[in-house]
Amino acid sequence: MSTIKKPDDPESDPRVKAVFDEIRALRGTDYINNLWVYLAFDPPLLEEIWQGVRDVMAKETLIDFKTKEMIYVAVSIANSCKYCIHSHTAAAKARGMTDEEHAELLRIVTTAGRTNHLLNGLNIPVDDVFDTDT
Amino acid sequence: MSTIKKPDDPESDPRVKAVFDEIRALRGTDYINNLWVYLAFDPPLLEEIWQGVRDVMAKETLIDFKTKEMIYVAVSIANSCKYCIHSHTAAAKARGMTDEEHAELLRIVTTAGRTNHLLNGLNIPVDDVFDTDT
Amino acid sequence: MSTIKKPDDPESDPRVKAVFDEIRALRGTDYINNLWVYLAFDPPLLEEIWQGVRDVMAKETLIDFKTKEMIYVAVSIANSCKYCIHSHTAAAKARGMTDEEHAELLRIVTTAGRTNHLLNGLNIPVDDVFDTDT
Amino acid sequence: MSTIKKPDDPESDPRVKAVFDEIRALRGTDYINNLWVYLAFDPPLLEEIWQGVRDVMAKETLIDFKTKEMIYVAVSIANSCKYCIHSHTAAAKARGMTDEEHAELLRIVTTAGRTNHLLNGLNIPVDDVFDTDT
Amino acid sequence: MSTIKKPDDPESDPRVKAVFDEIRALRGTDYINNLWVYLAFDPPLLEEIWQGVRDVMAKETLIDFKTKEMIYVAVSIANSCKYCIHSHTAAAKARGMTDEEHAELLRIVTTAGRTNHLLNGLNIPVDDVFDTDT
Amino acid sequence: MSTIKKPDDPESDPRVKAVFDEIRALRGTDYINNLWVYLAFDPPLLEEIWQGVRDVMAKETLIDFKTKEMIYVAVSIANSCKYCIHSHTAAAKARGMTDEEHAELLRIVTTAGRTNHLLNGLNIPVDDVFDTDT
Repeated sequence: MSTIKKPDDPESDPRVKAVFDEIRALRGTDYINNLWVYLAFDPPLLEEIWQGVRDVMAKETLIDFKTKEMIYVAVSIANSCKYCIHSHTAAAKARGMTDEEHAELLRIVTTAGRTNHLLNGLNIPVDDVFDTDT
Repeated sequence: MSTIKKPDDPESDPRVKAVFDEIRALRGTDYINNLWVYLAFDPPLLEEIWQGVRDVMAKETLIDFKTKEMIYVAVSIANSCKYCIHSHTAAAKARGMTDEEHAELLRIVTTAGRTNHLLNGLNIPVDDVFDTDT
Repeated sequence: MSTIKKPDDPESDPRVKAVFDEIRALRGTDYINNLWVYLAFDPPLLEEIWQGVRDVMAKETLIDFKTKEMIYVAVSIANSCKYCIHSHTAAAKARGMTDEEHAELLRIVTTAGRTNHLLNGLNIPVDDVFDTDT
Repeated sequence: MSTIKKPDDPESDPRVKAVFDEIRALRGTDYINNLWVYLAFDPPLLEEIWQGVRDVMAKETLIDFKTKEMIYVAVSIANSCKYCIHSHTAAAKARGMTDEEHAELLRIVTTAGRTNHLLNGLNIPVDDVFDTDT
Repeated sequence: MSTIKKPDDPESDPRVKAVFDEIRALRGTDYINNLWVYLAFDPPLLEEIWQGVRDVMAKETLIDFKTKEMIYVAVSIANSCKYCIHSHTAAAKARGMTDEEHAELLRIVTTAGRTNHLLNGLNIPVDDVFDTDT
Repeated sequence: MSTIKKPDDPESDPRVKAVFDEIRALRGTDYINNLWVYLAFDPPLLEEIWQGVRDVMAKETLIDFKTKEMIYVAVSIANSCKYCIHSHTAAAKARGMTDEEHAELLRIVTTAGRTNHLLNGLNIPVDDVFDTDT
C-alpha cells in the first residue's frame, strides 16, 4: 500500500538509472530499497532527495557514520516515521551499532522525549547562560 | 512566565537540597538552571526527573558525553522544545561540540526531518531486509 | 484492527443514515469509507466531525477543491496520520491532482519540514517586519 | 506579535458581540482572553471555534470539568502549543486542580511521552488482545 | 516486524523474570504483552521503563486509574504512537471506560488538536492572567 | 536569543555575499531576514538551505506562489515552528493572500489537525480504494 504507484521499470529512465548505479556503487550491493524504487515515480525529486541524503550520510564528514545514523534514528523516532526508523536502525547496525548501543540510544531518546514534554508543560524561562547570541 | 510558581526558597526542603548538591558536585559549579529550580515545586517529581536524566546523561556510559548531548538536541528539535534545545545545545558545546559539528548536527537533523515527511507522505512498505525480528 | 468495534448495522440509527445519505449524495457514489462507518459507533461524534469536514472541504469556498485537499494532505503528513494521508491524497487526485503536482506538493512539504527543524534548532528572533500585530 | 492584527473594536460586529456575551455569561467575568479577541478578525471562524470548544469544555458532560481540562493540557503539551498549555492549565486550576495533581498530570504526560518514543523506536506488533475490532 | 529481535527465552534472565512476575501479580493474569517481552532484549532498560510506568500507572495515586489511562491515551494520540494508543485504550476500558466516555475522550482530544493548530498558527500573546509565575 | 551567535559581518565571506545578493535580486529589496543572517555562521549550510528553498518557493513551478506559501504555512503550523509560521504567513500575504483566505487556510489546517487526532485515536484500516499501489 502506498499513495503512489511503484514504477514498473524505473531504470528505463536514465536519471533514475544514474541514481541507482550510484547507490549500488556506494553500498556495494545490488539491492535498491523501496524508498528509491518508489521515488522513481518523479526522477527530479528522486535526484534531489538522494543527493541530500548522500552528501551528509554517505560521505566522510566530521561525525562518524554510526553516530550519524543514530542521530537520524533519534529524529525519525520523534517524528514517528516508521519507514525511516526501520531503514536507519538497520543502517546504524550495518555501521556497527551493537544491541547495547541501541538500548542506550533508546534510553537517550526516551529521556529527551520525557523532558521535552515536561519543559513544554512548564514553559519556564530559558536561562541567560544558555543564550549564545550575546 | 510559567505554568507553575518559582519556589522562593527551594533548598529549605531537604530532598531538593540533596538534588541541588548533587547537581553542583557533578557539574563543578554553583549555578542551578531554571529547570531544577522550578521543578522544586514538587520534590518527588524533581528527584525522579533528575535521576532519570543523570543516569544516562551525567554518568559514563557506552556513548561519549558529547554525542549523547547531540542526540538529545536532535530529539528536542523534532519535538519543538525550546528550553531543551537551548540547554542541551549549551551542554553539547560544553562537552566540546564545535560550530562545525553543530552545523553538521543541524544538517543531519534537517535531512532526517525532510525524509521523515517524505516517507510519511508516501507510506511505502518497509523492506523485509530491515526487519530484525525474524 | 481498531480501538473501536466496527458497527454491524450502522444505518439502523437514523442519525447515522442521514449522514451516510448526505455523503452519498455529495460524492455521487454508494461507497462509504471506513472512517464514517467506524465513527458510527457514536452518532453525535459522527455528525460533529462530518459537518466540520463537510463545511470546509465539500462546499464551494474561496479556495478551490484540489488546493484544499493538498493543504489537508500537507498537515496530515506533518502529523503522521496514515489514514488521513491516504484518504486525502486520494481525494486530491479525484479533484485533479496530477503525479507532477503530487511530487511538487511533496517537495514543498519536505522543504518546510526541513526548515522547520532548522529554525527550531536555531531559535532565532522573528523579524519585526513579519509581525502583523502592530 | 501575531500573524494577524488584533481587531480594534471587535464588538462592533454583532456576531462577535454575541460570542463575547456568551463567554462572559458562562464564565461570570468581563475578561475576554486574547484568543477570542484576536479570532474576531474572522467572525465565522470565531463562532465555529468557540462553539466547538464550548460544547465539550463549558457544558456538563460525562467527564467532570477538571478532568477535561487536564486532558486538554496533556494534548496541548504533546503538540507544543504554548498558548493552549497556559490557558488550559489556568482553567484546570480554576476548576480545582491542586499543585499535587498538576505534578501528577505532568508525571503521566512525561511517562507517556517517554514510552511513546520507545514504542515508536521499537515498532513491535500490537497484541491481538488489544484489538477491539474483532 | 520490529527493529529488535524478540528474545527467545526472556525469563531465563532473572532480572526479566522478576519484572514479569511483578507484572503478572499486579494484573492478575499470566499474559505478558509484547512491549515487555521485546524490551527484555535489554534487561536494565526493561526494569527502568517498567518501574517508571508502574509507579504512576499501576499504583494508587491522586488521580483514579481510569482517568490516568485516558490521559495516557490522549498523549499517545497526539504523538501518533500506534502501540501505546492500542494498549492504553484497552487499559482504560479494563478500568471501566465506556464507549460513551471513549467518544467524549476523542471529542476533547480532537478539539484540543484543532485549537492547538489554530493557536500555533496565530501565535498570539499569552494573557498575563494565565501566568502563574508572578 | 539563539543557539548560535549572529555573525558580525556575514558578507565578508564571498559565499555568503553571493547568497545575499541573490536573495536581494529575487525579492527586489535590500532587507535580509534573520534566518539567512544567522545561518551565515556556516556558509555551506546557508547555501544548501537557501538553494533548496529557492528552487521550490522562489521559482516558477506548477503550483502558484501564493498556494505554495499557504502549504508551507500549513506544515509549519503542524510542526509548531514559530519563525517559519511568521515568515511564510508574511510571504503568503505578500503573494496576495487576503484575510479571508488566511481564515480559510486556518479552517482547513485546524480541521485536518482535528481529524488527524481522531484517526490516530481510532486506528481504523485504510480502505483498499485509497491504495494507489495496485
